[in-house]
Amino acid sequence: MSAQDLPFRHVAVIGLGLLGSSLARAVRAALPAIRISGYDADPAVRLRARDIALADVIADSPAETVEGADLVVLCVPVGAMGEAARAMAPGLGAGVVISDVGSSKAGVAAALAAALPGHRIIPAHPVAGTEQSGPDAGFSTLFRNRWCILTPPADVDQADLARLVALWEALGARVETMDAEHHDLVLAVTSHLPHLIAYTIVGTASDLERVTQSEVIKYSAGGFRDFTRIAASDPTMWRDVFLTNRDAVLAMLGRFNRDLAELETAIRDGDGDTLFDHFTRTRAIRRSIIEMGQDDARPDFGRSDHSGAK
Amino acid sequence: MSAQDLPFRHVAVIGLGLLGSSLARAVRAALPAIRISGYDADPAVRLRARDIALADVIADSPAETVEGADLVVLCVPVGAMGEAARAMAPGLGAGVVISDVGSSKAGVAAALAAALPGHRIIPAHPVAGTEQSGPDAGFSTLFRNRWCILTPPADVDQADLARLVALWEALGARVETMDAEHHDLVLAVTSHLPHLIAYTIVGTASDLERVTQSEVIKYSAGGFRDFTRIAASDPTMWRDVFLTNRDAVLAMLGRFNRDLAELETAIRDGDGDTLFDHFTRTRAIRRSIIEMGQDDARPDFGRSDHSGAK
Repeated sequence: MSAQDLPFRHVAVIGLGLLGSSLARAVRAALPAIRISGYDADPAVRLRARDIALADVIADSPAETVEGADLVVLCVPVGAMGEAARAMAPGLGAGVVISDVGSSKAGVAAALAAALPGHRIIPAHPVAGTEQSGPDAGFSTLFRNRWCILTPPADVDQADLARLVALWEALGARVETMDAEHHDLVLAVTSHLPHLIAYTIVGTASDLERVTQSEVIKYSAGGFRDFTRIAASDPTMWRDVFLTNRDAVLAMLGRFNRDLAELETAIRDGDGDTLFDHFTRTRAIRRSIIEMGQDDARPDFGRSDHSGAK
Repeated sequence: MSAQDLPFRHVAVIGLGLLGSSLARAVRAALPAIRISGYDADPAVRLRARDIALADVIADSPAETVEGADLVVLCVPVGAMGEAARAMAPGLGAGVVISDVGSSKAGVAAALAAALPGHRIIPAHPVAGTEQSGPDAGFSTLFRNRWCILTPPADVDQADLARLVALWEALGARVETMDAEHHDLVLAVTSHLPHLIAYTIVGTASDLERVTQSEVIKYSAGGFRDFTRIAASDPTMWRDVFLTNRDAVLAMLGRFNRDLAELETAIRDGDGDTLFDHFTRTRAIRRSIIEMGQDDARPDFGRSDHSGAK
């Protein structure tokens, strides 16, 4: 891509955790001509980011970080978006596009609109991540073959939107646009409810009288360990997701509770046919996910590589 | 291991799915001097097992399969144990040890004791598996570095027990013994409840009006896909597990429901501190599981190998 074709010339990344540091690395890897500036509210993270040369410059204030940028991407927990936006506002130039990577979108859109009136805001959510946190956890290929959902406002400038799409596609993502409310409903079921349930069962298992925590850990390969991975995700990020996407999460949780009660009744009544039919239906979904390239088809995700050695 | 040191000389495997075929492969790999005979109730599976030479002989009846064996391992769904035991009974020799690989143990112990009075029965449960089924899904290292729980009766012959321990250790497993009731409680939380919840949420997500199934699949990388793996496990096996371990599963489910209701209330009330504290506690469990060698520490299980390519 020649310099004229770059979707942006200077990308400022606010928040240098897993997502922010992955974004900086991905931009540098895919579009090295783009200038990258970075900031994190934690001084220790800024020091580390400088040590590993995560960006062309790590500034000491949000306003300084965004000076001269034509794209700012907020990579902070969704509950901190408004404050981060206000802090950087004095440094924003004219025409800069403001985006983010938050996991809930209607609340973020409202917070950014309130904090940055008159600015060009295009919220975004790359559906990618790992259970790890911090600037060392990021990697440049995190977004490759993953979906990035943009939730542009109705009056978005189409040229701005096209530039943001081009950036994410250059990082390897597949881009989809939808309205923020629909995003929040879809993600409530594909991400937020799974996390809530994983957090719950891991808590349940660690707080029993007749089964010790060491037994739970020892025999976790029977299924439990899959839940511990997502229940190891960043607590601040997830607190904010549940608080900002409350209504959709509670709606999906209501459905889940109803379905769980049905299976509970089937178990209680010894109704094997209901259980068998349900378990057969759910098997098909897995196949579709693998066909769509959204998971690894190797048994056990290839965890053991069939060697069993860890 | 010299022929004199072999824990058994002839192992009969009844049921040649993921577990049975893995057992046959593992015995052949680790202790090639042991004779292996195999049987599956499904004629197509027997044909396939012969094609891939899974055992020294694939017999056409359970009784014929166990003739001359000094160990029989039942690898059928736990609900089919009694019937499988009765079918093979006419072929059993004196002194043969009978074991199994079922995921619930009190019910299996009772079914085997009723079907095979006077026989030496030592129920077992290797806590290992993948989401795949059938004779081609098995592999010889499935049990390596995994726990195998034996639930011997109080009057077990100690020499028999030692031989069964030696076999499982030779296959790479770590062996623990406990009583069947405690096993069922531990596994209810580390395996059965996680499967029930995964089956539930995958069903919930595939049956919504405002979110399409294709959206669920598309954006599954946000957490949902982890649940689809275990919800793709064998429906017959899992139906039987829930029916045979009903009381322990319902007890653990009661705890889970109570804990989920607490988090639901915190979300409804906007109580971020409760959410944050809970999410921080659960993170520590993950670390312990990785330290115990029961999961892969690489982010995302190393699914993407950081290359993103699938």
